[in-house]
Amino acid sequence: MGCIQSFRQCCDRPKNTNVRISLPAVCFVWQIAMIILFGIFIRYNEESDAHWIEHKTYNNISSNIENDFYFRYPSFQDVHVMIFVGFGFLMTFLKRYSFGAIGFNFLIAGFGLQWALLMQGWFHSLNPLDGKIKIGVESMINADFCVASCLIAYGAVLGKVSPVQLMVMTLFGVTLYAVEEYIILSLIHARDAGGSMVIHTFGAYYGLSISWMLYRPNLDQSKHRIGSVYHSDVFAMIGTLFLWMFWPSFNSAISDHGDGQHRAAINTYLSLAATVLTSIAISSLSQKTGKLDMVHIQNATLAGGVAVGTAAEFMLMPYGSLIVGFCCGIISTLGYIYITPFMEKYLKIHDTCGIHNLHAMPGVIGGIVGAITAAAASKGVYGKEGLENTFDFTGKWKDMLPTQQGGHQAAGLCVALCFGIGGGIIVGCILRLPIWGDAPDNSCFDDDIYWELPEDEENNSPTVEYNNHMRSNAVSWQSCADSGQLSFEGIRRFKEETESNFSVEQSELTPRA
Amino acid sequence: MGCIQSFRQCCDRPKNTNVRISLPAVCFVWQIAMIILFGIFIRYNEESDAHWIEHKTYNNISSNIENDFYFRYPSFQDVHVMIFVGFGFLMTFLKRYSFGAIGFNFLIAGFGLQWALLMQGWFHSLNPLDGKIKIGVESMINADFCVASCLIAYGAVLGKVSPVQLMVMTLFGVTLYAVEEYIILSLIHARDAGGSMVIHTFGAYYGLSISWMLYRPNLDQSKHRIGSVYHSDVFAMIGTLFLWMFWPSFNSAISDHGDGQHRAAINTYLSLAATVLTSIAISSLSQKTGKLDMVHIQNATLAGGVAVGTAAEFMLMPYGSLIVGFCCGIISTLGYIYITPFMEKYLKIHDTCGIHNLHAMPGVIGGIVGAITAAAASKGVYGKEGLENTFDFTGKWKDMLPTQQGGHQAAGLCVALCFGIGGGIIVGCILRLPIWGDAPDNSCFDDDIYWELPEDEENNSPTVEYNNHMRSNAVSWQSCADSGQLSFEGIRRFKEETESNFSVEQSELTPRA
Amino acid sequence: MGCIQSFRQCCDRPKNTNVRISLPAVCFVWQIAMIILFGIFIRYNEESDAHWIEHKTYNNISSNIENDFYFRYPSFQDVHVMIFVGFGFLMTFLKRYSFGAIGFNFLIAGFGLQWALLMQGWFHSLNPLDGKIKIGVESMINADFCVASCLIAYGAVLGKVSPVQLMVMTLFGVTLYAVEEYIILSLIHARDAGGSMVIHTFGAYYGLSISWMLYRPNLDQSKHRIGSVYHSDVFAMIGTLFLWMFWPSFNSAISDHGDGQHRAAINTYLSLAATVLTSIAISSLSQKTGKLDMVHIQNATLAGGVAVGTAAEFMLMPYGSLIVGFCCGIISTLGYIYITPFMEKYLKIHDTCGIHNLHAMPGVIGGIVGAITAAAASKGVYGKEGLENTFDFTGKWKDMLPTQQGGHQAAGLCVALCFGIGGGIIVGCILRLPIWGDAPDNSCFDDDIYWELPEDEENNSPTVEYNNHMRSNAVSWQSCADSGQLSFEGIRRFKEETESNFSVEQSELTPRA
Repeated sequence: MGCIQSFRQCCDRPKNTNVRISLPAVCFVWQIAMIILFGIFIRYNEESDAHWIEHKTYNNISSNIENDFYFRYPSFQDVHVMIFVGFGFLMTFLKRYSFGAIGFNFLIAGFGLQWALLMQGWFHSLNPLDGKIKIGVESMINADFCVASCLIAYGAVLGKVSPVQLMVMTLFGVTLYAVEEYIILSLIHARDAGGSMVIHTFGAYYGLSISWMLYRPNLDQSKHRIGSVYHSDVFAMIGTLFLWMFWPSFNSAISDHGDGQHRAAINTYLSLAATVLTSIAISSLSQKTGKLDMVHIQNATLAGGVAVGTAAEFMLMPYGSLIVGFCCGIISTLGYIYITPFMEKYLKIHDTCGIHNLHAMPGVIGGIVGAITAAAASKGVYGKEGLENTFDFTGKWKDMLPTQQGGHQAAGLCVALCFGIGGGIIVGCILRLPIWGDAPDNSCFDDDIYWELPEDEENNSPTVEYNNHMRSNAVSWQSCADSGQLSFEGIRRFKEETESNFSVEQSELTPRA
Repeated sequence: MGCIQSFRQCCDRPKNTNVRISLPAVCFVWQIAMIILFGIFIRYNEESDAHWIEHKTYNNISSNIENDFYFRYPSFQDVHVMIFVGFGFLMTFLKRYSFGAIGFNFLIAGFGLQWALLMQGWFHSLNPLDGKIKIGVESMINADFCVASCLIAYGAVLGKVSPVQLMVMTLFGVTLYAVEEYIILSLIHARDAGGSMVIHTFGAYYGLSISWMLYRPNLDQSKHRIGSVYHSDVFAMIGTLFLWMFWPSFNSAISDHGDGQHRAAINTYLSLAATVLTSIAISSLSQKTGKLDMVHIQNATLAGGVAVGTAAEFMLMPYGSLIVGFCCGIISTLGYIYITPFMEKYLKIHDTCGIHNLHAMPGVIGGIVGAITAAAASKGVYGKEGLENTFDFTGKWKDMLPTQQGGHQAAGLCVALCFGIGGGIIVGCILRLPIWGDAPDNSCFDDDIYWELPEDEENNSPTVEYNNHMRSNAVSWQSCADSGQLSFEGIRRFKEETESNFSVEQSELTPRA
Repeated sequence: MGCIQSFRQCCDRPKNTNVRISLPAVCFVWQIAMIILFGIFIRYNEESDAHWIEHKTYNNISSNIENDFYFRYPSFQDVHVMIFVGFGFLMTFLKRYSFGAIGFNFLIAGFGLQWALLMQGWFHSLNPLDGKIKIGVESMINADFCVASCLIAYGAVLGKVSPVQLMVMTLFGVTLYAVEEYIILSLIHARDAGGSMVIHTFGAYYGLSISWMLYRPNLDQSKHRIGSVYHSDVFAMIGTLFLWMFWPSFNSAISDHGDGQHRAAINTYLSLAATVLTSIAISSLSQKTGKLDMVHIQNATLAGGVAVGTAAEFMLMPYGSLIVGFCCGIISTLGYIYITPFMEKYLKIHDTCGIHNLHAMPGVIGGIVGAITAAAASKGVYGKEGLENTFDFTGKWKDMLPTQQGGHQAAGLCVALCFGIGGGIIVGCILRLPIWGDAPDNSCFDDDIYWELPEDEENNSPTVEYNNHMRSNAVSWQSCADSGQLSFEGIRRFKEETESNFSVEQSELTPRA
């Protein structure tokens, strides 16, 4: 008990947001470590090595176009856009945290993808003969996928943590992800093309648990900065739309060549379309006058893509995709209206971007849909070879039945949940240490802490000039008063009020100037 | 006559913009209908079905890369970006209608693509044996194309209609499109790879006719909201550029594998480049001091892509593409300068985005260019097989001559025009009913009607704080006044200073005004 | 001496920014010239011509998918996005030059790509038999590459030149580029897949030399417009991210089919990731409190892509890419902190976007890395066929050794430097003539010179309304004053008016709140 108490006390020391030592140190040390580890472990695979031409002859491959690059590179680029522009801009909705949203997203992703190549390589593709990890375009997609789970987690703590904390969160997040992915995909042999379980469920619960551990009872002091402004909402729509449009590429990026990728793209396309309509419907219903809320349009419209992730490569059927999208649009929007405020008030989990509604719930639904679809698979629908191909019933899994596969899918979902919640709690504890430079409660959601801000637009606009000239008026008033012929009492009261108002205003302006 | 009169009276009842019942109802009912119809009709095609592996063996297809997915998916994603980001952001130029532009664009497209898959399926790919529609990546592109025509129509009525009206407009628009497309492409056997006729001409005249039917004589009351602000123009350029860059993918997305797609991309690329120069030239010429107008840069630069749509897959020759782009840049920019104001004043057609200049005229030009290019085709230029391939002279059209094909192209253009104008008038009548929740004349182009807006940026800025403190000054003045004595001298000095300050400020403001 | 003096005097005549004659004239004349030259010289190549089907049979090509279009089109589209959105938005960071940044970028690129197709065609692919240039998707990529070098040069003079000057700069820039590229790639037989030397080094020094020639000693008068505002920095991040994400496509777009493209993408991906971390580290270190500077995030994070350009298709090894990215992030950020101010102060080179740090230095580093990597190549690492393929040791270069190749690479770098600096000085001289309509020193970085600007946002906001009503108050005060003594009556009237005005204003504000 005393131990916990002293841990608490230690965590509650006054905050110092200066990251001038810690941030560069973390960046340099970790980047150098990456270079060393890449030097030891990482090499090109057969399709990206200059020996490809020999490999091609040896394996009787007729054309360069059969290089995996041409199957997956367009999807990779779409996924890449989702990671950097999609997630980055989706989080710009806060009125004064756009730099932090895009910039730290960039930092996390830049570091995370390197570490993910290593972690995923060790678990999935370490060659036992030469001890090397061979990378190609599929590794790059998988690294981006892994990073996605950390960016989802960032959504829960957006504006409340320092870049150093984010780096630590990413280091552990990628590590946990690689282990969890190995257990789910390799040991349990669950299928998860679009990562409903592996990416979204894990990432969201990881972020929510961290946010729970880092709960700030006095966050009210920054409440006025949580809203959006008109243009920040438009910026956020850039993120939303790029995520929405490229989600079919996300879910199909690493599924089987041929029909697998084709089907995953169609299913995701349809599911997302249905989600748009039901999100908008619920959003309109939730307001007295039927007005729409941008928060729902920005987020809930994406829930269908999350929820169809696992089953995207299965024979979910077009109407099945629509049903999944239909339900998720409703659930996700209702989540924003009812569950997020509930979680904040009663569970002490503050979820800045509402990832519980966009990733956690739809991710779990996606896992369940995947389990049901897998369990219901039959040779009639898939064809004999199609069934084997789709569920990879080869090698030691040769005799597996679809019903069993359904069970394995469900088991995979549980693993993702456990890793997300468990890992988040542990990492959250670490992040509570008062050494990471996070912002005090009254400076959250403010770029001013970690960014050199440009002078405010307003400082150059007529407004400010107007303020300045009113200040000189105040001075001339003072001289009026000095001239003696205005009732002393009235003038003094005016002067005092003016001055106190100006000083308030000035302090508002100064930090930005 | 009495009937028309009473219809008018009925239409002119006071407006109620509450869509809390109608919008969710339309979204839910239509989405459920989609699910049911998809359940009955829509299945995966051979290339996206799990039986692909058997199909491949059976048809002796050597590699997965020959799946149509790999021919078309990158183009599909580009088209998808054009639909959602391109059209969405192009319409954000209004100072206070960015939410409506992007949000309703999203809604229309999300619904429209589902309905398009059904409508186009019924007309083009209903299997007579099993009564199913088989979809694949080409169906998705075609659905996006169909949606494009409705989004073009939205451009004419932007800011003046309710989301419910837009849904109705889309329902009928997609239906008309599918019929018109079937007549033009299948019955008349016209070719229209990039949809100059089928998409642009139809969509633009459909929208203009609706706008004509919904003419608001008192729209002046909202005139001050029709302009742009600095940042909204920059947002609109996001739309412009994504449309411009991806137009080669649009025009080549469904043309023939191999040289067809290749040639369509080159032609569009060149045509658009030429359009940029002539639009900018005319824009500069049209102003006394040679300044450029953002409206022209945002819109007229795209006209070359529209006009080269039909002929993109023909042997238009690179210089031919440049000529088309050259002319369209001039015509489209002149349209913005002269025709749009003319149409509003004399024809009572208010065209918010100027779709007449960007889609209608270039679309018609594109149809004519296509007819001429087709009529001029010869075996010398195309080669025997090339000619058959390009114009699809197979089956019952085996003996068709290029000159005949030219006539068919012209006929196709007429069909597109008739469907656009006729359909638009009928749908416009329906939309005049006062049940759709559209805005009153003095609240057009204002997001405030259908969106929960964030607090204004200004509300948190020094300005507002300043306003607040001036209010308190007024109070202190009151107390001054109550104290009864203010000397003439002090007041006069205040007056002079105030005036001189105001004049400074005014000169600051004027140059931008 | 007298000659130079009179040239100077001639150049220092007062500025006239009216481009109403010159800009349209340049656009029209040059575009018509393009059409004529395209008519004479440019035709489709075998893969985009309707004879493709015969060519396919003749060359025993099994499938349409082997058309180069499918190897390169997705990369082409990514490059296209970099040119128009990437470069365009990267330059929007200035508070009042976003229109000029995006719009003139658009103009330069639209003209430049046509001229590049011709110039590059004459040098690289003029068929001696029929005197025609045959174009395909690779030509389009090369044209975009060529344009990139001119856009880089634009970065140095952003805000200080007129659109006519930019057109002249592009005309000469493309011409010089084509010659330089021919010397480096064909005569010297250097390899430069991503254009570190050919594109970046040349383009950057070309721009810097021009900026040096156009040095404005009195630019201080526009200093207050050089900064950014909050939202303009966010817009610039759109440019940064699209450049960053699609750089792997840039570097792999024209490298060898198969492993060449695959490897180039991986190397660039990794190099860029490392750059992000070191740029952020140095940026944080450079500020007293560890705050990050948006200028560094927007620019320095891209340096790794530039520096890995030449060596991207070589066997640089993943850790090699990381090392290159690591170093360039540091060097580029330090450049922004120390070198840019130094160059402006002592060398009289004003570099608006800091292209010296983003393109010049990393480009030179990229050339050196390429030379070293080439010199170190061995049959052990590449395999015999791989080595021949990668370095194109065929035909007259059959017996070349890797060490020799290293020397050729270094020679290529020198050629790029000479052409950049020499060409820039000559073109800069031409651009100093006072006939191009550039802005006077006190109006640089201001869109108002060449663009019709929308009314300021503030003009329609409560602020301005407030100002207006204060003006009317001043008037009512005047009447008070005229009445001679501030009687109780006057004060009361003022009070009432003020209050009623406030209530009006408040109702204006409330609906948004």
